[in-house]
Amino acid sequence: MARVALALVTLTTDFGTADGYVGAVKGVLHRLAPGVTVVDITHDVPRHDIAAGAHVLATAAPWFPAGTVHVAVVDPGVGGARRGVVVAAGGQVFVGPDNGIFDLAAPLPSAVHEIAAAGFRADRVSSTFHGRDVFAVAAARLAAGAPPERAGPAVALTGRLPGAGAAGAAGAHRVVHVDVFGNLVTDVDGGAVPAGSRVRVAGREVGPLRATFEDVARGEVLAYVGSGGTVEIAVREGSAAELLGAGRGAPVEVIGP
Amino acid sequence: MARVALALVTLTTDFGTADGYVGAVKGVLHRLAPGVTVVDITHDVPRHDIAAGAHVLATAAPWFPAGTVHVAVVDPGVGGARRGVVVAAGGQVFVGPDNGIFDLAAPLPSAVHEIAAAGFRADRVSSTFHGRDVFAVAAARLAAGAPPERAGPAVALTGRLPGAGAAGAAGAHRVVHVDVFGNLVTDVDGGAVPAGSRVRVAGREVGPLRATFEDVARGEVLAYVGSGGTVEIAVREGSAAELLGAGRGAPVEVIGP
Amino acid sequence: MARVALALVTLTTDFGTADGYVGAVKGVLHRLAPGVTVVDITHDVPRHDIAAGAHVLATAAPWFPAGTVHVAVVDPGVGGARRGVVVAAGGQVFVGPDNGIFDLAAPLPSAVHEIAAAGFRADRVSSTFHGRDVFAVAAARLAAGAPPERAGPAVALTGRLPGAGAAGAAGAHRVVHVDVFGNLVTDVDGGAVPAGSRVRVAGREVGPLRATFEDVARGEVLAYVGSGGTVEIAVREGSAAELLGAGRGAPVEVIGP
Repeated sequence: MARVALALVTLTTDFGTADGYVGAVKGVLHRLAPGVTVVDITHDVPRHDIAAGAHVLATAAPWFPAGTVHVAVVDPGVGGARRGVVVAAGGQVFVGPDNGIFDLAAPLPSAVHEIAAAGFRADRVSSTFHGRDVFAVAAARLAAGAPPERAGPAVALTGRLPGAGAAGAAGAHRVVHVDVFGNLVTDVDGGAVPAGSRVRVAGREVGPLRATFEDVARGEVLAYVGSGGTVEIAVREGSAAELLGAGRGAPVEVIGP
Repeated sequence: MARVALALVTLTTDFGTADGYVGAVKGVLHRLAPGVTVVDITHDVPRHDIAAGAHVLATAAPWFPAGTVHVAVVDPGVGGARRGVVVAAGGQVFVGPDNGIFDLAAPLPSAVHEIAAAGFRADRVSSTFHGRDVFAVAAARLAAGAPPERAGPAVALTGRLPGAGAAGAAGAHRVVHVDVFGNLVTDVDGGAVPAGSRVRVAGREVGPLRATFEDVARGEVLAYVGSGGTVEIAVREGSAAELLGAGRGAPVEVIGP
Repeated sequence: MARVALALVTLTTDFGTADGYVGAVKGVLHRLAPGVTVVDITHDVPRHDIAAGAHVLATAAPWFPAGTVHVAVVDPGVGGARRGVVVAAGGQVFVGPDNGIFDLAAPLPSAVHEIAAAGFRADRVSSTFHGRDVFAVAAARLAAGAPPERAGPAVALTGRLPGAGAAGAAGAHRVVHVDVFGNLVTDVDGGAVPAGSRVRVAGREVGPLRATFEDVARGEVLAYVGSGGTVEIAVREGSAAELLGAGRGAPVEVIGP
């Protein structure tokens, strides 16, 4: 069997790793797109936490090459009315439910298509496992070179990321993600913080922006521009979420110099 | 070095992911079968839980292409009397201990061979890590094209899956797996449930078969035909195992209409 | 795009699997070295536990083929004064911080180079995520065939593995790692233990070396030569760490026959 160079397919799910679900998805991908390279981003999104999945996908996806197919399945509405979609954006392609999970990684899609065509879904689709029966099938076709518009009719995304938009209008900022280290990732653009400003999170001041963890002692809190370009709050060799008792949604302020 | 198209090798173990054991297995596979594609199914089978490993493997394996080599190592008897085997079934090949772990994924093998031949085991085999020293070596040979009968003499499987068979004779049904979401997977064939039937698990009635999670409110229990084709019991956005206090082995009844 | 055979790149980190950090590293590798094979060793090293990361890497790395590029990032000093390095040893290449993490896998490097050259680091390097901005970039170059000396000037490693060396001088032995099963891995060379010796750990005698777990009853403790060649202490189908209340650093003695 000749193998041709295929696009990468990444996986971001809340399936966990203890069951056979992730394996079934990988099996479908390898069976329908022989030679494909499958890359685990994570299967440990908190169950049904679409906002967390959207953040993880936005953290990882931009670093992949053009043409990568990203499958993201955090899908509490599986089997219900929500559509399955293919979203083209920035030279990459995203596959999953229309529930807001692509809003952070692909905020301005160039095309969105419903997954409807024969060949982009299994002949028999279960009501509970579209990751295997719909999204893996569509991703395999796309990885093998099918264009997104072959998946089905052009549609508009209707899913909304839970909690999104509430803060922006008033110019208020907040913690948008807590990572596994307990670091608090905010939506404050690090490049727009005036020199000499101090950061306050959940009502507590955490000081000016630092250049590196080593600028504070072990166990102390600091604010800095994180690897995603926004302000983050951490505790050196500790957990800011624990120390500050703050989580996703906590208010963040930048106090001018 | 020219690379040829090799079979896939999947891994299903109870090694966990925190140590170097999985890495050592992958190293052997890549060293002995350059160009091989290694696919993680899971390394999070509960330690020594052969029945859980068998279920996970049966959930994932059927979706892989013909020729795939599945390594499954949940092996409390490692270093003892149990044999290492290669099991051919349904166009795929399974490699691991003869302790029942293949009974669900490969119930009717077309051939079983003991792993005995030179080249299918390391020259020095440790007493505690046959995943690295026996099964990875054998899988690499098979992935590179060696036929199963080269592994060693034809044998009959003697390992039995713990708990298997007890229920079948009397026609009684039970929960055979609890997945990471707390869903209860039963051995009731979903296609054989008469319309209008109700399902009872652990003495509690959970209603008729539903089409999708959205047929009940959040936090409510439902029965449905799961992605594996058997009846499952879940709680929408919750855990049936917790709500019902039921686990593997719990009795399941279908009450006719 | 033609793909050539590239070296393997393995990953050993303390990033956890719930965030997008591992995915970002993989994205950089696939973007800069199209066709590369990326192998997860683990992302579950306890956070900032350099000694545990060093042990995991040493457990897995020797089994990989010559030319493999091993990226190891347990890096509490990220963004500070510690250097990023490329370490050549035994035909393999190691990439990560100069903090002792390679001391067990590559105790006698043939060459060490600082990662300084353009092309071996991203144009913009964040202060907190050198796994993505430095080590993945360098590893991609190395996997694509660049020689280690292209990374930057030759340097001497200055990082020291925490706790290393303390025991050796006096001939004392100790537990060097506790694996996920609760097995205690020691630094006692299994080949140098006289027949008839007994092993004592944390002041408690655990008997002579056994050949296999099945030499003791379930729940009983045993000593044996582990898969890494050193003496280990385990409980059959249980946890020696729990039963003995012993962890890393616990004293180990071999009592002559």
